[in-house]
Amino acid sequence: VRRAKIEDLHSRIGQTVRVCGYVSALRLQRKMQFVIVNDASGAVQVTHRRGGADDEIEQQLERLTPASAVAITGEVLRNEIVKLGGIELIPSQVEVLARSEAALPIGPESGPDVRQDWRFLDIRLHPQRRFVFDVATAIETALREFVTREGFFELHTPKLMGTASESGAEVFQLDYFGRPAYLAQSPQFYKQMAIASGIDKVFEVGPVFRAEPSFTSRHATEFTGVDVEMAWIDDVEDVMQFKEQMLRHMLEKVRDRYGDQIHDAYGVDVVVPVLPFPRIPLGEARRILQNRGWEPIDKADLDPAGERMISEYVRHEFGSEFVYLTEYPTSVRPFYHMRPTPDVTASFDLVWKGLEITTGAQREHRYDVLVHQAVEKGLDPESMRSYLDIFRFGTPPHGGFGMGLNRVLMLLLGLPSIRDATFLFRGPHRLEP
Amino acid sequence: VRRAKIEDLHSRIGQTVRVCGYVSALRLQRKMQFVIVNDASGAVQVTHRRGGADDEIEQQLERLTPASAVAITGEVLRNEIVKLGGIELIPSQVEVLARSEAALPIGPESGPDVRQDWRFLDIRLHPQRRFVFDVATAIETALREFVTREGFFELHTPKLMGTASESGAEVFQLDYFGRPAYLAQSPQFYKQMAIASGIDKVFEVGPVFRAEPSFTSRHATEFTGVDVEMAWIDDVEDVMQFKEQMLRHMLEKVRDRYGDQIHDAYGVDVVVPVLPFPRIPLGEARRILQNRGWEPIDKADLDPAGERMISEYVRHEFGSEFVYLTEYPTSVRPFYHMRPTPDVTASFDLVWKGLEITTGAQREHRYDVLVHQAVEKGLDPESMRSYLDIFRFGTPPHGGFGMGLNRVLMLLLGLPSIRDATFLFRGPHRLEP
Repeated sequence: VRRAKIEDLHSRIGQTVRVCGYVSALRLQRKMQFVIVNDASGAVQVTHRRGGADDEIEQQLERLTPASAVAITGEVLRNEIVKLGGIELIPSQVEVLARSEAALPIGPESGPDVRQDWRFLDIRLHPQRRFVFDVATAIETALREFVTREGFFELHTPKLMGTASESGAEVFQLDYFGRPAYLAQSPQFYKQMAIASGIDKVFEVGPVFRAEPSFTSRHATEFTGVDVEMAWIDDVEDVMQFKEQMLRHMLEKVRDRYGDQIHDAYGVDVVVPVLPFPRIPLGEARRILQNRGWEPIDKADLDPAGERMISEYVRHEFGSEFVYLTEYPTSVRPFYHMRPTPDVTASFDLVWKGLEITTGAQREHRYDVLVHQAVEKGLDPESMRSYLDIFRFGTPPHGGFGMGLNRVLMLLLGLPSIRDATFLFRGPHRLEP
Repeated sequence: VRRAKIEDLHSRIGQTVRVCGYVSALRLQRKMQFVIVNDASGAVQVTHRRGGADDEIEQQLERLTPASAVAITGEVLRNEIVKLGGIELIPSQVEVLARSEAALPIGPESGPDVRQDWRFLDIRLHPQRRFVFDVATAIETALREFVTREGFFELHTPKLMGTASESGAEVFQLDYFGRPAYLAQSPQFYKQMAIASGIDKVFEVGPVFRAEPSFTSRHATEFTGVDVEMAWIDDVEDVMQFKEQMLRHMLEKVRDRYGDQIHDAYGVDVVVPVLPFPRIPLGEARRILQNRGWEPIDKADLDPAGERMISEYVRHEFGSEFVYLTEYPTSVRPFYHMRPTPDVTASFDLVWKGLEITTGAQREHRYDVLVHQAVEKGLDPESMRSYLDIFRFGTPPHGGFGMGLNRVLMLLLGLPSIRDATFLFRGPHRLEP
C-alpha cells in the first residue's frame, strides 16, 4: 500500500490506505484507543476497539509515545462525530518507524532559549512555525523568477576573502593554511567584479557574516543576503525601479499563494504595493519628523525611532507601506557610493513597515574619482588594491542593492524577532545547535 | 535615445540608436576610423570618416583605448562589405563611460595564475568564458524548478557551527566572540535537523568549505554544494530515483536552451539520460574492473582510475554516461549511513563521465542503532551529542545526497579544471582576488 496524504483521505472512504506521520495525541481509554496522527498535510484520528490479550494492534498502540513517527495502514471510514473532518482510520497494521522518548524537552512553558536549543521540535510541534518556511520558499522562488526573467546571472561568490571587506562592521577572521582569511560581510566586492567581467546583471542569494555583538530582535551574525548589481544604468533611479518591481512581484506571488493562510495564522494582510514607492530625500525626511517631535540621535541619518515614524508618515500621507529615502549625505555612506555633488550620494535606503530592509546605490566606477573618494574618507588605497584594480580597465556605470531575506520574512509575517524567521539563528551567544 | 542591444541593430536600419559596450578593437587609419564595440549580445563596427581639426568625434575616437566602456549614438546603416553582419554605426555622439588603461595585464600568452589574478578581465575578454555562467544559471534554475515542483522547502542553514562537523575532512576554524567556531563542510547535520523539524523535503544550494590541501583539477576549498534530503522514504532506491529524475530534468533544460551553443563552443553534446541509470554494486564493479586489468589502490573503494574505467564500461555496455555504484561497504562510509546488513550500507555514489559527482544514502534514523554504529566506528557519542539528539524524539526514515555544482558544470562543458567552472576559485594557494 503506497503512502496517502492525510488531506486526501476524504476521497478514499472505504479504501485501505497507509498514513505516515507523527503521533500528536493519544487517548487510551478502557474500551477504545484513539491516536491522532499528523503529517505535513493535516491530521487524522486512528480509532481502535480493544480486542484483548491477543490483540497485537492494541499492544502496539498502548506502547506508543507522543511525537513518535509511525506508519498506520487501515480502512478509512466516515464518522460524523469525529472532529477531524468526520473521518477515522481503522488500523489493520501499525509500524513504529521511530519511537520518541516519552518526555519531550520542550513544552508550552518553554522560554526562547530552550526553544532555540530544541528548535527542530519547536518547529515540528507547531505547524505555524513550519509554515514560515513555506512562505520563505515562496518568496525566494518569486524573487528568482523575477530576476532570471530579467536576464540576470546567478553567481556564488567566495565567502573566504584574503583581505577584510570594505565595510566598517567587524569581520570574522580564520586561519587559512597558515595565513589569515576573512568571512565576507557581503558580496559587494565580488558582484562589482562580476560587472567588470562583462556579466551585466548579476544576483546572489547566500550567507553573509557580521561579527557584530548586536542583541536586537533584528540582527544576526549570519543571515541570508540577496544581492543584485546591474550595469549600464543611467542613474540610481534605474536601481530603485528594478528593486520596487522585484518586491511587487514577490509580494504578489506570496499573496496569491499564501495570503489567506498568512492572514489566518498571523493576522497580517499581504499588501501588494502600488508603484512607484514614495521617494523622500533624507534631509526632507528629517525635517518632516522633527516637525512632528522626533529628536534625532544621529546627526545625519535616521535612527530606529525615525524609521518607524517615517513609515507612519508615508502610510498616512501616501497609503504606502514602503518608502525610499534618497540623497544620503556623503558623511554616512561608504567611499564607493557615487556622489552627484560632493556632499550627496546617489544612494537610498528602503524602509518597510518601520524597518530598513535595503541599502542601494549607484557605485563610483571611475578609477581616479574612486581613489580620490577613498583618500577623502581617510582610507589607504594600497590596502584595497584588489578592489580598486577592478576599475582600471573600463568598468561601466553600475549600481545595485543588498537585502536581508530573514528581515523581509519577519516583516512580512509580523514575527516578533528575526530568530523566528531563521531556521537556525546565529547570534553572539548562539552558535548551537 | 534609449540603449539598443547590438543583436537587434539589423532591424533598426536607418534609425538613430545608442549602443553601450566595450571597445574590443580599434583601427585608426589615415582617412577612416573603425571601432568594434561589443556588448553581451554581439559586436558592431563603428565607422567614422575623419573630418579634420574641428571634428570632435574624430578626437574622441582617437583617444579611445581597448577595453574602455563606451556609449555610442549614431545611425545604423547597411553596408555589405562590413564583416559584422553587414551593418555599421555612423557615430553622432561618443561618450567614454570608463576609460581603460592602455596596457592590459593579461593577454593570449598569460598562464593560469595570471588569468586567475585578473579573472574579471579573462572572462570579459573571452565571451566563451562568460558563457559558462549562462549555463550555470540555467542548470541551477532547472534544478530549483524541479525540486520546488516536487514540494521541497528551500533552507539556508548555518555555515558557522559550534562543533566541527561529522566528516573526516579538515575543517576551517575561526574565533567566534572568544570561542572556537567551524565552517560547515556540508549541511548534512542541518538538513537532517530539518527532517526532524517536520520539513519532509528540503534542499539547499550554498557554499561548503573544505580545509583540504588538495591540488587536483577537481578540488576546491570552497565550492557550491547542492544538498537534498527527503523523509518517509522506503529505502535508498527512493533517493536514487529522485536524483536521476532531477538530473534528467536539468540536462533536458540545458540541452533545449544551450545545446547548440555548447556544441559550438566546447565540442560537447549535452546528452539527456535515459532512466533508470545502470546500478552496479561496488563489489561487482571492482570485480569487473579487475578482470579488465585495473589494479586498485584502495582496498574497498574505487580510485580515480577506477571511476574512469567503470564509466567507460557502462558507456560501452549500457550506452550510459551515468552509473550508480551501490552497496558500499560499512568500512568506507560514515557511521550514520544505514546498514541493511552489518557490512553493507544503503548508500551510493553517482559517477558521470569518469568522475564522482554525488554521494547519497539512506540515513540511520533509530537513535540506539545510530549510537551503536558511532561507537563501532570508534567515535565518542558525547562529542556529537547535538547530532544524536536529533534522533531521540521520533525522526522518520530519510535519505538524501550532496552534489558539487561546479564539478557538474565542469563535466557538462568538458572544462579542463574546476577553476574554469567557478567564478572565483579558492584553493590552498588561492585566496585572491
